[in-house]
Amino acid sequence: MGASLLPDLATQILIPVCGVIGIAFALFQWVLVSSVKMSAGGGRDAASKNGNTDYLIEEEEGVNDHSVVAKCAEIQNAISEGSTSFLFTMYKYVGIFMVAFAVLIFVFLGSVDGFSTSHQVCTYDATKMCKPALATAAFSTISFLLGAVTSVVSGFLGMKIATYANARTTLEARKGVGKAFIVAFRSGAVMGFLLAANGLVVLYITINLFKLYYGDDWGGLFEAITGYGLGGSSMALFGRVGGGIYTKAADVGADLVGKVERNIPEDDPRNPAVIADNVGDNVGDIAGMGSDLFGSYAESSCAALVVASISSFGINHEQLFLCVAVGLWAGLIIGFVTEYYTSNAYSPVQDVADSCRTGAATNVIFGLALGYKSVIIPIFAIAISIFVSFSFAAMYGIAVAALGMLSTIATGLAIDAYGPISDNAGGIAEMAGMSHRIRERTDALDAAGNTTAAIGKGFAIGSAALVSLALFGAFVSRASITTVDVLTPKVFIGLIVGAMLPYWFSAMTMKSVGSAALKMVEEVRRQFNTIPGLMEGTAKPDYATCVKISTDASIKEMIPPGALVMLTPLIVGIFFGVETLSGVLAGSLVSGVQIAISASNTGGAWDNAKKYIEAGASDHARSLGPKGSDPHKAAVIGDTIGDPLKDTSGPSLNILIKLMAVESLVFAPFFATHGGLLFKI
Amino acid sequence: MGASLLPDLATQILIPVCGVIGIAFALFQWVLVSSVKMSAGGGRDAASKNGNTDYLIEEEEGVNDHSVVAKCAEIQNAISEGSTSFLFTMYKYVGIFMVAFAVLIFVFLGSVDGFSTSHQVCTYDATKMCKPALATAAFSTISFLLGAVTSVVSGFLGMKIATYANARTTLEARKGVGKAFIVAFRSGAVMGFLLAANGLVVLYITINLFKLYYGDDWGGLFEAITGYGLGGSSMALFGRVGGGIYTKAADVGADLVGKVERNIPEDDPRNPAVIADNVGDNVGDIAGMGSDLFGSYAESSCAALVVASISSFGINHEQLFLCVAVGLWAGLIIGFVTEYYTSNAYSPVQDVADSCRTGAATNVIFGLALGYKSVIIPIFAIAISIFVSFSFAAMYGIAVAALGMLSTIATGLAIDAYGPISDNAGGIAEMAGMSHRIRERTDALDAAGNTTAAIGKGFAIGSAALVSLALFGAFVSRASITTVDVLTPKVFIGLIVGAMLPYWFSAMTMKSVGSAALKMVEEVRRQFNTIPGLMEGTAKPDYATCVKISTDASIKEMIPPGALVMLTPLIVGIFFGVETLSGVLAGSLVSGVQIAISASNTGGAWDNAKKYIEAGASDHARSLGPKGSDPHKAAVIGDTIGDPLKDTSGPSLNILIKLMAVESLVFAPFFATHGGLLFKI
Repeated sequence: MGASLLPDLATQILIPVCGVIGIAFALFQWVLVSSVKMSAGGGRDAASKNGNTDYLIEEEEGVNDHSVVAKCAEIQNAISEGSTSFLFTMYKYVGIFMVAFAVLIFVFLGSVDGFSTSHQVCTYDATKMCKPALATAAFSTISFLLGAVTSVVSGFLGMKIATYANARTTLEARKGVGKAFIVAFRSGAVMGFLLAANGLVVLYITINLFKLYYGDDWGGLFEAITGYGLGGSSMALFGRVGGGIYTKAADVGADLVGKVERNIPEDDPRNPAVIADNVGDNVGDIAGMGSDLFGSYAESSCAALVVASISSFGINHEQLFLCVAVGLWAGLIIGFVTEYYTSNAYSPVQDVADSCRTGAATNVIFGLALGYKSVIIPIFAIAISIFVSFSFAAMYGIAVAALGMLSTIATGLAIDAYGPISDNAGGIAEMAGMSHRIRERTDALDAAGNTTAAIGKGFAIGSAALVSLALFGAFVSRASITTVDVLTPKVFIGLIVGAMLPYWFSAMTMKSVGSAALKMVEEVRRQFNTIPGLMEGTAKPDYATCVKISTDASIKEMIPPGALVMLTPLIVGIFFGVETLSGVLAGSLVSGVQIAISASNTGGAWDNAKKYIEAGASDHARSLGPKGSDPHKAAVIGDTIGDPLKDTSGPSLNILIKLMAVESLVFAPFFATHGGLLFKI
Repeated sequence: MGASLLPDLATQILIPVCGVIGIAFALFQWVLVSSVKMSAGGGRDAASKNGNTDYLIEEEEGVNDHSVVAKCAEIQNAISEGSTSFLFTMYKYVGIFMVAFAVLIFVFLGSVDGFSTSHQVCTYDATKMCKPALATAAFSTISFLLGAVTSVVSGFLGMKIATYANARTTLEARKGVGKAFIVAFRSGAVMGFLLAANGLVVLYITINLFKLYYGDDWGGLFEAITGYGLGGSSMALFGRVGGGIYTKAADVGADLVGKVERNIPEDDPRNPAVIADNVGDNVGDIAGMGSDLFGSYAESSCAALVVASISSFGINHEQLFLCVAVGLWAGLIIGFVTEYYTSNAYSPVQDVADSCRTGAATNVIFGLALGYKSVIIPIFAIAISIFVSFSFAAMYGIAVAALGMLSTIATGLAIDAYGPISDNAGGIAEMAGMSHRIRERTDALDAAGNTTAAIGKGFAIGSAALVSLALFGAFVSRASITTVDVLTPKVFIGLIVGAMLPYWFSAMTMKSVGSAALKMVEEVRRQFNTIPGLMEGTAKPDYATCVKISTDASIKEMIPPGALVMLTPLIVGIFFGVETLSGVLAGSLVSGVQIAISASNTGGAWDNAKKYIEAGASDHARSLGPKGSDPHKAAVIGDTIGDPLKDTSGPSLNILIKLMAVESLVFAPFFATHGGLLFKI
């Protein structure tokens, strides 16, 4: 593996130490968050006990009684229970799939060498003997399951801390925006650091345990380790898609009846779908995103390890440093561009808001054009980082650049998670009947959260592109392909069909959100029509039925898109062979990246154009408002359309491209041996 | 060139005979259309003079006087004048560009061999001497200009016949849907056959004239002929983009103020933008589309000729027949799928209409999902036809498959042109103050026209994909590249940037439509506010200013997207070289096809969902209507969003992919000799 900067022992110590520091830091942040007490006695007593002498703002004094705190605690509980119940239901179904897929991995990879238990000649060094394919099959299966479990734990912990922090953010918002921000951001940091450290420690332990068997058979070891990435990403797929459908079905359903038909504010406690909406933020935007970024992280580590194990080149540490730097730099540019196109502090979103003057149609046209335009610079950034890092260290350079981009994952997750936490905090304030000033503060946090979420998505997509390319490179090596020539029909048909897959996938997920939302609309309408006193606030809505509708719909609807992603590499590899599969991977990569970026940014821009009009912070914004004006109504329509784009189909697409690549990599020896049936006839 | 089925002399006679028959048939159809008289005396007198004994339907009797016919003639004149004036303005600007580009072609291609006038060794046969590069440069320039002129003539003639037929269709609609259909369809056929025959004859004459110089230097001859495709396509680009911006700016602008704000019907004569709207149909949907399909036709012929001249394989006529068949078959499937997804007789459009119940947001979500979904089968059809035709005769097979798909071009153009003619006819009926039954009939034709237009676009896109691939193959041969390996960074960055270009281009065109529409909205509002008696119908609006706004805006706004498409191959070829350019071509091809298909179908579905609600032909449709109901308003929003998608950005994308491919092919020798400057440093 060439000369290292540090001796092996130092590396062996440094990695777990980093992991422990990350976990310790996360726990410390958690202790800080938990200092906001939710029990009777209220925020002020608790704060003064901690030596905190802040006073609540005047007009809140009247409501700063036990009942408000108790109400917040009650709502928090309902959200937390709904989220836990959904995740457990989802994990149950996905668990069955995971076991089945684990068996598939073992059987397919074991069959490569006819389930032989004898050692074989190494693929990359014919002078040595390597471990049997059957062993790699077994260890791949184990690491697949480990990756899946770690992903589940990551998502679940993130959801737990988010539902722990949301009501605390609400209570702190009584003291000011700054206080609320700190709680929300610290909770995000708990998730970010815990998840990054967790992923690192599990991977470290797994590699060291596998090494006891593999010894210096690095190729076999890291082949087996790729299962970890596949496990992480498959769970992430279902988490993102299921959670994404859940959150947007509830959100769109709640808005369509509540805001549009009944003219009651967002998150009004009279709306039966309001708890489901808040649960959705936690299971989709928190747990789903946590699993997703953990997947990226696991895959980019695996990609770097595998590529390193099969490449034979001298490592030049300065060049690798430059690869990391170029990845970081590209991530930074993507972040800036995303902010420019989705924050309402800049002209693009203001132009979109302005186009609401002439109605929803121009708003949608301008929003779509904005999303398309926002693709340009990120793609150039990705292209340049690919070119530079490849020039330095071929595919290994690209894997390292991906790691560079993901090196900010802990912070990225923190800023990403803080948005939904603030969103939830605002919802809780509304439901607990707190002053509108509280809501304005959480809305300000939430608007910033839309931009940070878009930045987080930009990072996720950018890193997904690099990771997928590195995995693709590893796949090609492992499947013993020398060139992927676009001019051969086998590759070209793969390329064009691959470029179509993101559209197919998006159609499925958007339609799913639409259908699930329609079901939700019917239920919410039914409750408004049949429960007497609901609109007057004298009767309580049946929140649980709405939670159940979202749960059932998302579990059911996540299967077809999940199957599309998981089965495509298998079907293409088995029937068409590795060349066509290479084309599919390249096609879905170059096409999916564009749709993912444009969908995320279009959705983010619409959301913030609406918030821009609502906040009315400038003369221009006031000329479009207030809430309820025609331009505002047009902006709400754009926001609703953007929901499935930015929170369901867009962010799931980066999992699509990564997952297909890592799955192809894991099954590469099988496809190379037994694949391409159609062309063998 | 291998054995032919027919002796050379027979081919030499057959081709011009086919051309003459086509022109004769077109003229015959034109005579039939012209039998509907527009002069004083009215439809009935003229009809009875022709032995036609149809009676006008009862309720029309009252208005069947000189004044109606005169009014129709007057409106037709205004539309015709507006269209002619726009096209001449556009041709003036584009003409300057064409001359400049012609000089560029001559200089760049002449410089390949240092402007040497001596003969050189042939590229594909080192034992022979071929004509000098300077001669090819000169002949390429000439054929480029010829292609441009033929494209202009095609578009112009189409526009002329369409504006000749629209009022005649209105008058015939008084006798029934069938009569009106015949006039509209025959006029479409005039355009279709004239254009196809025209293209064939010009190409035939050009080849035969060039042959006088080139003799048996087939390579040089057909290299020079590719200029014809480039000329045709460059004009088509500006025609499609300029015309597309014109028509949709006027349409969206007219609708936003007229239908939405002032609540007056579509095409109401009080709306100042109404003439511009009708002019737009003729310059965008007729002239632009005519130029576009002529471009496809010219390019696929050129692609087949060039590929044939540089390939060395035995021609098997049965296999070539199968290639033609597979192209036709794929076109048929694309046509059927498009019809299924865009006609309101099937469930997809009905589902979209149904989603209008819950407002514009769900309508947009369902419409976008429909467009994405509609991509799946056409892509498989294209992939299969590529695979099959490539297996039979490599790149030549693909070019022949493209010709197979385009063999129905005359009919395709006829059904495509008949839509805008019917649309115009409805507009004229409305403006002339004729009965609503006339409008209902033209609306029925127009609804079918939306579907046929979508089918036409499907054909255009499918054939563009095949043509581009064939041109791409020819480019690669001519630039002496052996493989286009996705795994090399030069190619991959081209691939990902190429896949981004359709987004960039769409963002530009959609934003252009939006900005131009906003200007139109301001002018229309100004006229309603400042011209007394306009709403009451006592004063006439100032149509000419609106026509001028659309003209100026579209001329100005077509430059950036035009420059993007025309300059990209030059910049990439000169600075990054032929490998990266190959990547760009492949990337824009596989990505552009998807966006083009989904944009066209989404737009078509929205338009017909609106028409479905308006027509109220079933219980379901009536439950969503009538005009002015909330679902109908939501449907109108979708229709307006769809306008730039289906008539500007979508159909321009197929020109983008074809044009970049043919431009790369023309400049291939230059790039191969002097290109890739950045990597040479």
